[in-house]
Amino acid sequence: MANKAITSRDVDFAKWYTDVVRAAKLADYSNVKGCTVFEPNGYAIWEKMQAVLDKMFKETGHKNVYMPVLIPENLMKKEGELINGFAPEVAWVTIGGNKELEERMCIRPTSETLFSDYYSNKVRSYRDLPLKYNQWCNVMRWEKETRPFLRSREFLWQEGHTVHETSMEAELETKNMLETYKTFFEDYLAIPVITGKKTEKEKFAGAEYTLTVEALMYSGVSLQSGTSHYFGQKFSKAYDIKFSNRQNELEYVYQTSWGVTTRMIGALIMVHSDDDGLVLPPKIAPTQVMIIPIGESEEVKTFCDGVYTKLKEKNISVEVDLTEKSPGFKFAEAEVNGIPVRIEIGARDLENNEITIARRDTKEKIKLNKNIDIVKAVEEVMNDIQNNLFERAKKRRDELTYECHKLEEVERIMNTKPGFVKAMWCGDEACEVKMKEIRGTKSRCILENETAIDDKCIVCGKEAKHLVVWGIQY
Amino acid sequence: MANKAITSRDVDFAKWYTDVVRAAKLADYSNVKGCTVFEPNGYAIWEKMQAVLDKMFKETGHKNVYMPVLIPENLMKKEGELINGFAPEVAWVTIGGNKELEERMCIRPTSETLFSDYYSNKVRSYRDLPLKYNQWCNVMRWEKETRPFLRSREFLWQEGHTVHETSMEAELETKNMLETYKTFFEDYLAIPVITGKKTEKEKFAGAEYTLTVEALMYSGVSLQSGTSHYFGQKFSKAYDIKFSNRQNELEYVYQTSWGVTTRMIGALIMVHSDDDGLVLPPKIAPTQVMIIPIGESEEVKTFCDGVYTKLKEKNISVEVDLTEKSPGFKFAEAEVNGIPVRIEIGARDLENNEITIARRDTKEKIKLNKNIDIVKAVEEVMNDIQNNLFERAKKRRDELTYECHKLEEVERIMNTKPGFVKAMWCGDEACEVKMKEIRGTKSRCILENETAIDDKCIVCGKEAKHLVVWGIQY
Repeated sequence: MANKAITSRDVDFAKWYTDVVRAAKLADYSNVKGCTVFEPNGYAIWEKMQAVLDKMFKETGHKNVYMPVLIPENLMKKEGELINGFAPEVAWVTIGGNKELEERMCIRPTSETLFSDYYSNKVRSYRDLPLKYNQWCNVMRWEKETRPFLRSREFLWQEGHTVHETSMEAELETKNMLETYKTFFEDYLAIPVITGKKTEKEKFAGAEYTLTVEALMYSGVSLQSGTSHYFGQKFSKAYDIKFSNRQNELEYVYQTSWGVTTRMIGALIMVHSDDDGLVLPPKIAPTQVMIIPIGESEEVKTFCDGVYTKLKEKNISVEVDLTEKSPGFKFAEAEVNGIPVRIEIGARDLENNEITIARRDTKEKIKLNKNIDIVKAVEEVMNDIQNNLFERAKKRRDELTYECHKLEEVERIMNTKPGFVKAMWCGDEACEVKMKEIRGTKSRCILENETAIDDKCIVCGKEAKHLVVWGIQY
Repeated sequence: MANKAITSRDVDFAKWYTDVVRAAKLADYSNVKGCTVFEPNGYAIWEKMQAVLDKMFKETGHKNVYMPVLIPENLMKKEGELINGFAPEVAWVTIGGNKELEERMCIRPTSETLFSDYYSNKVRSYRDLPLKYNQWCNVMRWEKETRPFLRSREFLWQEGHTVHETSMEAELETKNMLETYKTFFEDYLAIPVITGKKTEKEKFAGAEYTLTVEALMYSGVSLQSGTSHYFGQKFSKAYDIKFSNRQNELEYVYQTSWGVTTRMIGALIMVHSDDDGLVLPPKIAPTQVMIIPIGESEEVKTFCDGVYTKLKEKNISVEVDLTEKSPGFKFAEAEVNGIPVRIEIGARDLENNEITIARRDTKEKIKLNKNIDIVKAVEEVMNDIQNNLFERAKKRRDELTYECHKLEEVERIMNTKPGFVKAMWCGDEACEVKMKEIRGTKSRCILENETAIDDKCIVCGKEAKHLVVWGIQY
């Protein structure tokens, strides 16, 4: 029986989404327009994401730093494309300490400017390179329409900014970080992703090119989930980041940046969750196991404690629900909160030498002998859940991925059962604009290593240059 | 021989401080006036502090959340004392998305307002209480004079905000969090602290009372290092945070807040460091051990690897310096960066069955048999360093703590060898103002559990009410 506080996702996906966010206590609207309060359940997911990614970054030689939240207008304007891209959506501080500022400053929408300014003072020789820095911080973009996690004026993210001696090394970094994101999405979030290059129209303002990780939501809508940019020398020329190279000549550095945001929490919800609430892959769930005692008996309590201790010792994140609610209420709460594994332990079960494990993903209940190796059993079931969520999402993604050769096909698909559309493109922006007329369908990315499926552009019929994935986006 | 890039701390303490910050690559000035760039070495210390404190907070039932960075003026103004206290030092956003805002918003100087607003929507019954939330974030206060870590327009901190059913519970929380800070300072940072209550004049705007952790720097100057506030019902009345209590009557909640900041990095520097650079207690050092191979021989390399692996396995944070610099340069670098333990391994040493351990705190070099249990040896020396730093700081603090009965004594002390002055006070603000004329000497805190040392106020000679610690502050 579905949770009554939650609209069915097949009836109204947008409403279902906000219902899940509220029911699982992930976030709340605030009295600051366009900004979200991250509540404990939501913030804990972000902390788990941070811990995994931060380890991956550090293992590949990146170091964390922290740059100021404000950027003086003058500094912001040095790279023309960047300011043009972000000017319409920044927030300006004009008064500080009761005084009008001589120069207004914006709250960072992204920090290429500050990193570039910093690097220009630090880099002197090829011996100083590479510098591979990252920061975890808040950023602000003055969005009009906002939705928790997916689009809000303030969000949390990490932004990596690196400078290198050669273009080859910088391009490799750009690619490696994209691969890091892909690994994170697939192995931890259990979300299958497509990776590729953004078109000129869709790339990041100021980048030579942008690589992207694209995921498909349950509803068939696409979500840009992480990007990695190669800047070449665009910023280093604008911000004068020069070094003496091995030939003792002055040269501009080659630069990258890459980021993922709290939007990933939105992706988790929209890919895995259901009409009973949140569903979380065990590898990213802040609480992996909830033990629920049924009844008041001492024997049950002692048994629950024993199971808790065994799991805790093996670093499984486990809790015992000792609140004064009915077991049924506790089951539903563990369910709506997306806890992957529930262990139900009652007096009658124990008499029958049994305990019950309930899986959040399939709702399956499994009776086990109470003396089983509980650590092994839980680890196995968590593994199963992790794999099942990935396979389930992949199956749906594949079902909703279409090869198209005519615009009418795209139109029919996007109006009935949308998803990823693979189609050939001539490389002309006008054709992208034309495609957008179909329910806002945009290019997600260029697939660089897949075989062409046609020799003509799906829009204009001229010679095709790229196989592109298209989709409707959030 | 002292580091040439660093002024002696006994010659010019302020200059020495900034020299150490630069030489140890902790922070850099930025082109954003009044804001600091936290460089990798500095930020890594903050990460270590966060990890320890976050664990302490979570173990005592606190949960992390995240509130918006902007506060609408109207919301900010609801509690009169708070806005009066912070109005002169906030930064206002007046333009967003190219439009003048209808209501300006400030960048949070602290978040009582947003937490109170949130709680007012969440709390209904005593069953919802307590709520014990914390957030790690950036805040902004428009300071005029700034110094890295000690005082800057933007800084990083944690702010805990809790709401409770009874005043007793909230007051206990206020006290417990102060004790948590004291434990953190003494057991991890190796900084002895004095704890007590702020006077009315020095308490936080809007608090019933403020408890504080006060430390003494090497120079004899005081540093307010952490505060814990009891709000009673001041904010709950202003923001209408009501709950139905156990008698089924509507009542306002009792509230607390508490915070420590990146200023703690400044305290670490000013208490422990010396003319050779940074000195870090092992429990907070991002890198605890640096292994330095001397010469190029394979045997040395293999031996270094072996030591590295053994230490790493025991979760000691260790690195091997494999850069192409001279051993002497590497020694100096490990020293200026404050790495507690250095292990020097050379071919000749190995022939003599020896390796050398160098302590950063005392500069002592210890020859050890190369086959010694290196994990045990390193753990012992780190323990020693941790204890020695605390004892050394405590000894200096105690030497610079004076009992005074006359203003002339305070004057003489503050003008020659300043420190903590213990003196009796009548409770009258006029006497605090008078005291401030002596080189800005301020009350640090009221010692509530110590015996009176006089029956007269040191300033006016009238009946004394409190034993107070006074000091010159940053």
